[in-house]
Amino acid sequence: MKSIGTSLARAALRKLKIDLAKISQPRLFSSMASKDREDAFSNPDVQQMLLNLHHSMVKTLIDSETKELPVCNFKQPEELLKALDLEIEKEPASNDTILDACKSVMDYSIKTASPRFMNQLYSGINPSCLAGSWVTEVLNTNLHTYEVAPVFVMMEKYMMRKLSKLVGYDNGDGVLCPGGSFANMLGMHLARVQIDPDIKSKGMGNNKKMVLFASSEAHYSIAKGASFLGFGESNVVRVETDKIGMMKPDVLDQKIQECIQQGSIPAFVMATTGSTVLGSCDDLNAVADVCEKHGVWMHVDAAWGGGVILSEKYKHLMNGVHRSNSVAWNIHKMSTGLVQCSIFLTKSSGMMEECNRFNAEYLFQPDKHYDVSYDIGDKTVQCGRKVDILKLWTLWKSRGDNGMAKQTDNAFENAKYLVDQIKKREGFRLVLPEFQCPNICFWYIPSRLRNKEENADWWKEVSKIAPQIKRKIMEDGSMMIGYNPLTTKGYVNFFRVIITNPMTTPQDMDFILDEMDRIGHAL
Amino acid sequence: MKSIGTSLARAALRKLKIDLAKISQPRLFSSMASKDREDAFSNPDVQQMLLNLHHSMVKTLIDSETKELPVCNFKQPEELLKALDLEIEKEPASNDTILDACKSVMDYSIKTASPRFMNQLYSGINPSCLAGSWVTEVLNTNLHTYEVAPVFVMMEKYMMRKLSKLVGYDNGDGVLCPGGSFANMLGMHLARVQIDPDIKSKGMGNNKKMVLFASSEAHYSIAKGASFLGFGESNVVRVETDKIGMMKPDVLDQKIQECIQQGSIPAFVMATTGSTVLGSCDDLNAVADVCEKHGVWMHVDAAWGGGVILSEKYKHLMNGVHRSNSVAWNIHKMSTGLVQCSIFLTKSSGMMEECNRFNAEYLFQPDKHYDVSYDIGDKTVQCGRKVDILKLWTLWKSRGDNGMAKQTDNAFENAKYLVDQIKKREGFRLVLPEFQCPNICFWYIPSRLRNKEENADWWKEVSKIAPQIKRKIMEDGSMMIGYNPLTTKGYVNFFRVIITNPMTTPQDMDFILDEMDRIGHAL
Repeated sequence: MKSIGTSLARAALRKLKIDLAKISQPRLFSSMASKDREDAFSNPDVQQMLLNLHHSMVKTLIDSETKELPVCNFKQPEELLKALDLEIEKEPASNDTILDACKSVMDYSIKTASPRFMNQLYSGINPSCLAGSWVTEVLNTNLHTYEVAPVFVMMEKYMMRKLSKLVGYDNGDGVLCPGGSFANMLGMHLARVQIDPDIKSKGMGNNKKMVLFASSEAHYSIAKGASFLGFGESNVVRVETDKIGMMKPDVLDQKIQECIQQGSIPAFVMATTGSTVLGSCDDLNAVADVCEKHGVWMHVDAAWGGGVILSEKYKHLMNGVHRSNSVAWNIHKMSTGLVQCSIFLTKSSGMMEECNRFNAEYLFQPDKHYDVSYDIGDKTVQCGRKVDILKLWTLWKSRGDNGMAKQTDNAFENAKYLVDQIKKREGFRLVLPEFQCPNICFWYIPSRLRNKEENADWWKEVSKIAPQIKRKIMEDGSMMIGYNPLTTKGYVNFFRVIITNPMTTPQDMDFILDEMDRIGHAL
Repeated sequence: MKSIGTSLARAALRKLKIDLAKISQPRLFSSMASKDREDAFSNPDVQQMLLNLHHSMVKTLIDSETKELPVCNFKQPEELLKALDLEIEKEPASNDTILDACKSVMDYSIKTASPRFMNQLYSGINPSCLAGSWVTEVLNTNLHTYEVAPVFVMMEKYMMRKLSKLVGYDNGDGVLCPGGSFANMLGMHLARVQIDPDIKSKGMGNNKKMVLFASSEAHYSIAKGASFLGFGESNVVRVETDKIGMMKPDVLDQKIQECIQQGSIPAFVMATTGSTVLGSCDDLNAVADVCEKHGVWMHVDAAWGGGVILSEKYKHLMNGVHRSNSVAWNIHKMSTGLVQCSIFLTKSSGMMEECNRFNAEYLFQPDKHYDVSYDIGDKTVQCGRKVDILKLWTLWKSRGDNGMAKQTDNAFENAKYLVDQIKKREGFRLVLPEFQCPNICFWYIPSRLRNKEENADWWKEVSKIAPQIKRKIMEDGSMMIGYNPLTTKGYVNFFRVIITNPMTTPQDMDFILDEMDRIGHAL
């Protein structure tokens, strides 16, 4: 991006009919104490670099959001390596070099702020959320004691109370985690200590075998967590799902009974609101009935789907969540907080501390001059913990509760539009008859395969289509949409369009289908 | 901070003798596509908010770094709650409200960029590192596939190779983690799978008891990790240390032998470079001798001390690290990267994938159009992973290898100066005769307690001094320094000054001691 002078900027402003008198001008700050240092903020060169970077970042965001930039500028790994010049020298690099490098990083990175980035469960950036995350970096601290993070401790307490109430936990508590997988693991950890508090001290070797349950569509973190926490992956029981991917509660009941009959302990049931691929939402009341019957900890993985609870229209998808023991909810997904904004909530206030308390004497001195119950580090197994709360608060504050609801509704409305269009168009076929969340899965069938016998060979051919289209759209940079097979249902490669970006419009939905048809029909 | 007009800014620039022609002016960008949206970057109000915030953030950093701002603006929790107004309404908040809130957050937060923040193992902010972290937020992605994070995948590969070589792993690999505790846990996880690959599947119940070893000065994450990973806290054996806190290798050897005699498996030895409180550095060669003798996985927790390896002068403190199996190293501590920048390294390339591979089919499709070995998500147990690599790269690039070394040397030099001054001053007493790292521990003895019999009552009185001084310095906002007792050594409350901030000077060291004396002598 080339810099432009004052007169050009003023002309642009006039065009926009913005009152110049109302716009504050940039400043360079002065300080004599350390400005001769290369790496001091008081050094004007540093200030200029940061100001230029600011403009470059904002420009990138505008051009991403308005689709003036391609979603990606794809290079194969070895090509990219040549383009980037990652080499670090013995001597320092100048501020200009850092600025150029940052611009180059932006050029070659994916523009996840683009409404045409529908590849992952996150897309789109809210400016207030970004403001919060930038300030977080400036304040560079850890969320373990009130002493070093007073504002963030109070903010996290406030938000965790608010979110706990939203899921119907009267006396709940929570903590922000490094990712939804980690939040699911915290649930497993609490469940196990509730069964036997001695596990914290004695480990997993002294008990009957503990078994974890989740649907066959549930996220793979149940398996990784089982391995990491010492349960073992083979002690995860996958429960069959129905046609649209919802866990069958009667099968869950039966599997739990088998577990008990085999002398093992059913330790943890993970229900899902918004499965990663199909967006399926388990019937939480039905799962809760089974869990209550057997006295098993019920955790809800709402990493993707949690946003439904914000909307009057879609909160029914989480009916029964108040009966669960814990919830994982990634605000950076359906509600477009910035990565990572992963919430763990539990009904049992105090349980996190009971599980994780260690009272490290160098952090949690009892004779501090404030109420040390505000030192919240022992809620989790991390020591230092990245501050993710400010960006969550600024996001929510800027939208208000109503705006948070609207964000969810908007995603669902675009998804509904997409489904309607897919149903109308030749060559597109939905994977499910209906979708519960705004991830929409479909196959594209090129002309030559239409109206043919749909045998194994035919499906094999269909499976090759998505990777080819994906390659082309990434090379074009026009959009990013993921594809995958789904072995649990026996489905070959299909596209999964994920709609969360608040800038997405029905026109973007049309664009997707037009592009796929254009690229794919002759494949 | 009030905004100032163009003429004032120009006057300030003239004063600084900066050539205006060389300074690019700010711009407001225009776009018609979405600028009518409240939350669009193309909305000029949003741009103005972000620009004002930029100035406010840079001003805060300058004033923190140059000590024009107090380190803290302490309020008791309930007072702070009133000052903050955290309430979120149903309706959206304006951009002005978000800006004001961000400023208020900065006002009441700790200025960890200040050279007088010596309370934690991090202090000081490097502008290039900050630039990298801001850009990371703008690009908002996850570090699991090349597809969504091409630049960051290449950057992480480059840096992990560079860091592996630094610790002497010829064919090593690594991954960035959410904190040093997590990095230590990854080490435990790998160690256990190396002993029995079936553990991943079968869990911890099927084996002989596995025991973990660390010195009595080692970080408490060994206990939290043992609990979380299913080993159990009681299966952590703490090994006695010598006078300056170094693990006694002969005691380690003996404890491992006892473990074997009891029919248990010695699974993991965690040596420490830079213990959290005393800064002790274990003799890694001596520990390696014991580990090799018994075939035990050796992990080095260099979360705090890892920066020594960058300096020709202090790298000897990690002699023998190449013989270890894994290392945890927080660049955000001694090397002042931004929180979090926690590296896990292992000698056994491929071992991380072996432990954590799950091949989730919705992320790691084998038929992608690039070399899928660049999809690195299965290196760890997280799924989505925050990008921490760009800020690490920009930090290192801006300093060069020599600048990284200088940062370490500077911290040690200031620490040495502080020790020398403490030795000279009445009323100050060092906790150890010598310190291996730049965390310096000492008691302050007020006038009334000097030259008295040092019995239990005397020490009880001394223990009350640090909390009182701490209270006063926080209320004054003049500096932040932690205190704690050290039960393992029988020490009552003492101060721990941690020196990492590159802006710290010997004058700051004098200031600390002057202030303590001023506040404390009559206590």
